[in-house]
Amino acid sequence: MPQAWSSHPIRVRYQETDQMGVVYHANYLNWFEIGRTEWIRARGMTYEDLEKRELLLPLTDAEIKFRLPARYDDQLMIYTKMIEYSNIRVRFSSEIRRQPQQEGSSPLEVDQSLPIQPRGELLVSGETKHVWINRAWKAVRIDKAAPDLFKLLTGDN
Amino acid sequence: MPQAWSSHPIRVRYQETDQMGVVYHANYLNWFEIGRTEWIRARGMTYEDLEKRELLLPLTDAEIKFRLPARYDDQLMIYTKMIEYSNIRVRFSSEIRRQPQQEGSSPLEVDQSLPIQPRGELLVSGETKHVWINRAWKAVRIDKAAPDLFKLLTGDN
Amino acid sequence: MPQAWSSHPIRVRYQETDQMGVVYHANYLNWFEIGRTEWIRARGMTYEDLEKRELLLPLTDAEIKFRLPARYDDQLMIYTKMIEYSNIRVRFSSEIRRQPQQEGSSPLEVDQSLPIQPRGELLVSGETKHVWINRAWKAVRIDKAAPDLFKLLTGDN
Amino acid sequence: MPQAWSSHPIRVRYQETDQMGVVYHANYLNWFEIGRTEWIRARGMTYEDLEKRELLLPLTDAEIKFRLPARYDDQLMIYTKMIEYSNIRVRFSSEIRRQPQQEGSSPLEVDQSLPIQPRGELLVSGETKHVWINRAWKAVRIDKAAPDLFKLLTGDN
Repeated sequence: MPQAWSSHPIRVRYQETDQMGVVYHANYLNWFEIGRTEWIRARGMTYEDLEKRELLLPLTDAEIKFRLPARYDDQLMIYTKMIEYSNIRVRFSSEIRRQPQQEGSSPLEVDQSLPIQPRGELLVSGETKHVWINRAWKAVRIDKAAPDLFKLLTGDN
Repeated sequence: MPQAWSSHPIRVRYQETDQMGVVYHANYLNWFEIGRTEWIRARGMTYEDLEKRELLLPLTDAEIKFRLPARYDDQLMIYTKMIEYSNIRVRFSSEIRRQPQQEGSSPLEVDQSLPIQPRGELLVSGETKHVWINRAWKAVRIDKAAPDLFKLLTGDN
Repeated sequence: MPQAWSSHPIRVRYQETDQMGVVYHANYLNWFEIGRTEWIRARGMTYEDLEKRELLLPLTDAEIKFRLPARYDDQLMIYTKMIEYSNIRVRFSSEIRRQPQQEGSSPLEVDQSLPIQPRGELLVSGETKHVWINRAWKAVRIDKAAPDLFKLLTGDN
Repeated sequence: MPQAWSSHPIRVRYQETDQMGVVYHANYLNWFEIGRTEWIRARGMTYEDLEKRELLLPLTDAEIKFRLPARYDDQLMIYTKMIEYSNIRVRFSSEIRRQPQQEGSSPLEVDQSLPIQPRGELLVSGETKHVWINRAWKAVRIDKAAPDLFKLLTGDN
């Protein structure tokens, strides 16, 4: 700590639009989740790995501020940061920002080695709270159940 | 005012589950929106009508509390209530509650003539804030742009 | 045999539209699946029951004809019929038809006791092929693995 | 002509899984569509451009063969090829193939300058037929309505 932003590029899919001509609002929650998935991957672990260890990290709370709508084919960046953690809970901050259109069809590339500053027009921001549970849907103390993971995620190593 | 709850039954679709074996969290935002749609219909107007009059009601804020997960084929009730309004904004409260399983394939029926008390196991609750805009995505004063609608929605007639 | 049509009403959700102003095409596959779920329920069993018995019925093939687009808030009827089966495979026929708009917010009701004739404007039709498998994703002979189920589904009792 | 394959990488999203532990089948239709979008972009035009010129290209038919299921976090390649066209219709072939897992979080990159040979484990294949229409949902002769586009898409320049 302090934790840094991770970034992950996506392009708005046709399926994600609605007849208002903009992105249907529930998709931003999907994108926040994709951001968290990539945040974990950037720390050298995958969410898939966590599930194989029978650890799940469901949401308990979400707060979302919708400022401007994303539109079809927009290139967006999902910014994700862990802003709080304990032995049993985690809190993330997320931002969806519009990027300038790039030539060509290849996905955006980001140099993940530098500290990332969120850039681009801010469309939607939010926070999500999560609790560590096991397959039986019971809370677990992550520092005891998976100390290596706890160190990795919290950068405390 | 005070505004009453509207209710609308849904059954969890297979597509709405994820590999955790529960409903993927973003679907609750969809269901809140279905609840608002039916809330408007119960007042004698459709959201379709609003759009034909070039009025849109996008979200500006959402807060969601996830208590218990819904599961495949669950019978749920969406409860919706307007809890605040002004000339330019509306705020709704929503609850998703699990209902006892019923025999047969016919959808649940609800007597909408009585004041509704939310019943069943509370799974997810939330609030959403909305702003009235026109097709050009500009804020409109709904009491001036559509006084009949304003009266209807606010029960002030 | 011959197998009869089952019917199940749905209303088009805002989330299912896209910026073309019509239903996004992939949703028809979801609706076909909802139709099969309700077809099984009408025979006194649930797809949930099948899964609890470790039987799955994934798609192997789909053919879809898109004639006319469904639109937001349309009242649709999903018609479903089993048109072929063996010890290891099942084939379903599905139709999505638009229904006349009804007053009020209560879901359509259908008297399931009479033989059903598909009615309303035909929007989309299709066929899906399925194979019985177990949790290990291996083909199973359903007449041996679950003879009671086989009889129930095929009406051979 | 003959037309070449285009390729576009995606990673399976958590939201795209279902409780069977695999990708929900309707998502393959979404992915075919993303493949067509990128096929058009690789030809120097965007589907967004087409819509601005009031040209739409909805599906009339789809045929899909599901061979093996995709799973969460899989890296997939969408392969897309135009296999037939006339003044009013287009037909595409699509394949979804699993790619070997790569290190790091950066999206796959593909050298689009070489003729592409579909590679990786074939999961799902299909064909889709489309018709050119205008905003009024009427068929248009694309060679007359947009000769430049017709040349571009058919490689006949």
